[in-house]
Amino acid sequence: MRILVTGGAGFLGARLARALLGRGALGGQPIKELVLVDLFPAPGDLQADARVRTHAAPLLEQGDLLASGFDGVFHLASAVSGECELDFDLGLRSNLDSTRLLLDSIRRSGKASRFVFASSVAVFGPYAGQPMPALVTDTTLPSPQTSYGTQKLLIEYLIADYTRKGFIDGRSARLMTVTVRPGKPNGAASSFFSGIIREPLAGVESVCPVDASVSHPVSSPGTTINSLIAVFEANASTLGNRLALNLPSVTVTVQQMLAALEKVAGAKVRARVRFEREERIAAIVSNWARGASSERALQLGLRPDASFEDIVRQYIEDCRRQPGYPENALQGL
Amino acid sequence: MRILVTGGAGFLGARLARALLGRGALGGQPIKELVLVDLFPAPGDLQADARVRTHAAPLLEQGDLLASGFDGVFHLASAVSGECELDFDLGLRSNLDSTRLLLDSIRRSGKASRFVFASSVAVFGPYAGQPMPALVTDTTLPSPQTSYGTQKLLIEYLIADYTRKGFIDGRSARLMTVTVRPGKPNGAASSFFSGIIREPLAGVESVCPVDASVSHPVSSPGTTINSLIAVFEANASTLGNRLALNLPSVTVTVQQMLAALEKVAGAKVRARVRFEREERIAAIVSNWARGASSERALQLGLRPDASFEDIVRQYIEDCRRQPGYPENALQGL
Repeated sequence: MRILVTGGAGFLGARLARALLGRGALGGQPIKELVLVDLFPAPGDLQADARVRTHAAPLLEQGDLLASGFDGVFHLASAVSGECELDFDLGLRSNLDSTRLLLDSIRRSGKASRFVFASSVAVFGPYAGQPMPALVTDTTLPSPQTSYGTQKLLIEYLIADYTRKGFIDGRSARLMTVTVRPGKPNGAASSFFSGIIREPLAGVESVCPVDASVSHPVSSPGTTINSLIAVFEANASTLGNRLALNLPSVTVTVQQMLAALEKVAGAKVRARVRFEREERIAAIVSNWARGASSERALQLGLRPDASFEDIVRQYIEDCRRQPGYPENALQGL
Repeated sequence: MRILVTGGAGFLGARLARALLGRGALGGQPIKELVLVDLFPAPGDLQADARVRTHAAPLLEQGDLLASGFDGVFHLASAVSGECELDFDLGLRSNLDSTRLLLDSIRRSGKASRFVFASSVAVFGPYAGQPMPALVTDTTLPSPQTSYGTQKLLIEYLIADYTRKGFIDGRSARLMTVTVRPGKPNGAASSFFSGIIREPLAGVESVCPVDASVSHPVSSPGTTINSLIAVFEANASTLGNRLALNLPSVTVTVQQMLAALEKVAGAKVRARVRFEREERIAAIVSNWARGASSERALQLGLRPDASFEDIVRQYIEDCRRQPGYPENALQGL
């Protein structure tokens, strides 16, 4: 099989690529070539694999490559939420226009690739005057409150139509908030969901900008990657014509996250988190899903992380074994 | 006010233009200029009005005009369902790309125009293995089964995002099937909804390709135009951030439509309709809404036609008074 991963040098893209190379096959077929397209160069371990081809360039400049025919595509490339709010045109170009080029290039190739799109829980939002429901489900009416979420939703519906027409064999997997991410705190409003675990483990103080009662659906990087692969391998007939589905997640409050941290890493680590409410962040987060269910993914056999403690343990394990995690990530333990 | 109507030479666009010129005002403000853009030239009566400017060219070639600043926009221009299924690229270009140019041109003008988009009941469709619900409501999860319906839905969500960002003051009015339309039978799968009333009144036989039990939400041209104007005049605060709404309709079966025809025009006219099931059409129609509710439009004060008999009577009246109806339209009466 010849497989394309867009955003293949990013945190999730590179991890997916490693998982695919480790398995060596998808749906029982050997992976002969893995093409990674990303704005940035792929990590060295991926570049060193003989099966990997990398292209560091915007998707929008890769029309010929994209039309060269793939058996499978994982479309992870995306401008992120904060960028899309700051630069409206960038979001439309990087997300909507790039995806249309990708879809039309595949259509032009004549090979109706199996196609997994990384959509997002950001397609959900509150309608004015109504609070967010306790759970967003596979059938909750989307109401995105960001340009990013809007673009993800538009792409879900484009993928459904390209699939209906037989141009691709598509499905849209709505990723929940992925935590714990390695790296530094960034400007994303969701940054603290990783920061309040990652920084204390590294021996660094962390400030939580929202109340401890805030609840949110999260998933570990490992479970998220397993889910994307399972959605790829799912038989189209089991999806029917409802191609978008919520990926499995654990719904936890900030308080439960910190209790899990304490249980796994001790009270000294937990004590490095303090609360300092930041109204701007709290307002954004109040528009987010408070929890999610994923009936259809469960029917396909996908499974969430067993608990948030498991997610913390996975992060500690990742720091010790996965490429790309800083050496001092656990010096607070 | 300076008002733009796209698709302004079409059946609904021209009727909307006449209604606006007849009222002379929108939301209490006088209409000083009415700009009609359409692929085709506008009817003579509209061209003769000193307030009207017409442009017969594709929207995609009208960037400068579209960026010239409007107080209000009615966006009716659209490739229709059948065209979009036959020519996938045409649909994306005529519907999605044209609308993005329009939205971005308005944004560039710096004037956040009041913007009414003519969406469609075609955003709804069945999910595999499930029948269509008896009623599609304002909160039914859309599942378009045509490229046309997909594109309408994408535009609804784009309009919500452009409005959230303050670039326009938008709202999306989902039109139900408009009947009775004048003119000849055409290739559209919905053609018979007008044909089974129009042809018998003209003294011509008509074939109904679906069972008499088929039920569908319909609206007269006059009520549809009144609804579009009412949606334009609705205060943004009453819409909240839920900008798409079903327009009022009457849900009727084919049998009820024919009974109304008989009541208004007599048994001799009714007898000109015979049933001859056409599987291709019946299959398409089985994916359509069986009925619709429109709670939010009713809350805004919009009203459906009182009955299908009223819709038949309106057509007969239109044949006698409205421009563009053929002279022999009622020779079967």
